[in-house]
Parts: sequence; structure tokens; C-alpha cells
Amino acid sequence: MQPVDLAKAYRLLNHGPTVLVTSQHQDKINVMAAAWSMPLNFAPPTVAVVIEESSYTRELVDQSGYFGLCVPARTQAELTLHVGGTSGRDDDKFRKYAISTTKGQHGPLVNGCVAWLECKVIPERHLEKNYDLFLGEIVAAHADPRAFEGGRWKLPPHELQTLHYIAGGLFFVASETREVKK
Amino acid sequence: MQPVDLAKAYRLLNHGPTVLVTSQHQDKINVMAAAWSMPLNFAPPTVAVVIEESSYTRELVDQSGYFGLCVPARTQAELTLHVGGTSGRDDDKFRKYAISTTKGQHGPLVNGCVAWLECKVIPERHLEKNYDLFLGEIVAAHADPRAFEGGRWKLPPHELQTLHYIAGGLFFVASETREVKK
Repeated sequence: MQPVDLAKAYRLLNHGPTVLVTSQHQDKINVMAAAWSMPLNFAPPTVAVVIEESSYTRELVDQSGYFGLCVPARTQAELTLHVGGTSGRDDDKFRKYAISTTKGQHGPLVNGCVAWLECKVIPERHLEKNYDLFLGEIVAAHADPRAFEGGRWKLPPHELQTLHYIAGGLFFVASETREVKK
Repeated sequence: MQPVDLAKAYRLLNHGPTVLVTSQHQDKINVMAAAWSMPLNFAPPTVAVVIEESSYTRELVDQSGYFGLCVPARTQAELTLHVGGTSGRDDDKFRKYAISTTKGQHGPLVNGCVAWLECKVIPERHLEKNYDLFLGEIVAAHADPRAFEGGRWKLPPHELQTLHYIAGGLFFVASETREVKK
């Protein structure tokens, strides 16, 4: 993974991939899946993500003030579905699903993903309480240069293409590009 | 276009497509492109979209209290880029780019798109002012049954596949599916 210029980090979510949300508070860690995230601003680089009130992730993010967003590759579709369908309160999902991680600045980041964003919560209690919506300033970002290079995505090798969740275990894969000459 | 059950309408944005935002106030109409939108809630069915303060769309949405989200197909990549790169203050984009529309309940909807959502603004002035973020309750939804049927997406015919904007005129296309057996 290579560092991504923070001014370009919003682009990691610009095409609407499904993400894994990672969290850590002290020695408690978790990971869940989220289809509802998007960039919110260029400068400061900001993202928005929905983190349901009853989730264990919500508890850890509320306590730590940070979350990670990891963009899974198509080979991680099973993993994405697994961590989306279980709670970290019941099980250590990292151990249960043999998920290997790298230690980020503020929590674990899932290995094998094509991009990582680390975000500091911008406190907006009204939003959090009424819409489960969290805003975060991107404080660090990394990407696999086979997929994201020079500040933008390119068509990655087959196994690194991104997932876009539909429903019922089915994903779209961003497996082609279309260029419009300006 | 066939009506979509409002309880399933959030799914039209679940996989993160780039959208066209349509707006109308009295006899003024506009259309712009937006990569930053997502579902926000199941019930009431709610979406979030970023509409920049200086945009003509913002002016019309502020006045009418409604916006449309149209999901363009890959054959509309040029159109998407065109309406994203010009302002409706300077030109009637519908006429300039020969964009044909259907009259929705609250404004124009772009023909040839694979899905349409009509949304009523949920007033959140703080969000609008500070983040250009608009929340909307979905009040009507339609989709092309060749792409979205029985409340979920399927892999559409080639020409109806959805666009996911990268940067600089380049889009990903959701041109494949991957299913995980639960």
C-alpha cells in the first residue's frame, strides 16, 4: 500500500464502492460492512458514512472518535458479507474469519483491500442521533498502486476490482472503464 | 419505466452510481451530475446528496423543496459529463444537449436513465449551509425493469449498465456481478 495525497483521498470513495468500517477503542476492535458512504468535501477532505446505532462499531467509534474505511477487492466478497452479517459483540470477527490486518494510526486496516482511509469523527450529534450519520475528516489514506495511482483509479487487475453491493449476497463489480474525451 | 416500491427504492443508490440531479421551480428547470449521493435510511426511505452552494440546482432546490435523482446508463456518459461541467445559469442544458425528459411529480426526469427517484427535501439548514448536504425523503421511484426488477438490480443489458465516476472524464462501469452464496 502506498500513501495517497489527502487532497485526492476523497476519490477513493468517489465511484461508490462498498466499504469495510474498522474501529478500535483501547483493546477492543471491530470491522463491519457499509454500502452507505460517500465523499462530502475536498478540503478538508471529508467523508460521510452511516453507522447504525445498535452496532458494536458505533460503540467503539463513539468512544475513540475515529474510524477506518477499507475498500475491499472482489476476492473479498465473502469476507465483506460475513462481517456485514454478524456482530462484533458476539464474536471476534477478525479471528472468526481469519482477517489479517495492518496497524493503522487509529485502528486496524484490512489487508488485501485496495484502499484504506483513516478518519477523525467531526462531531455532529444531531446527525449521529437522528440519522446514524457520521462525518469524518480523512487524516491518512493509502491505496494499492495497481488500482489507484497518481491520485486516481485505473482499471485494476481482475482480482483487485471493487465491489458495489446490491442485496441478498449479490454485488456489482466495477470491471470496466468508459472514458469520455473532453 | 416501472414504479418501484418505496421500501426498496433506497436500493437504486445502494451500489453507488453517479447520478443526475434534476430540479424545477416554477418554469425554471435544471440538471447537474453528482457523484456524491447515497441512501440514508430504509423507512422513511431517505437519501443524502451533496449540492454545491453556488450551483443553479441549489437555487432551484432551495426554492421548490424537491429534487430528482436519475441514474444514467453507460450510453449517457457524455451527457453526464456535459451537465456536470456547465451551469444552468448560463444555458438551458436540456436544449443545449438535446436531453429528453419525462414530467415527474415535482420536476423533469431524464429519459434513457435506468432509475428515477423523486425526493422531498428534509430541511436541515445546518447541514445544507455547512456541508452542502441535502437530505431527501423518496416520494416516488421508477426503474427500467431490464435493470431493476422485483425490488433489486440484476445485471442489465450492456447499454443499461451504470456509471461510477472516477475523475477526468473516466468512469467505472458496473458491468459484472459477483454472488456469494449465504
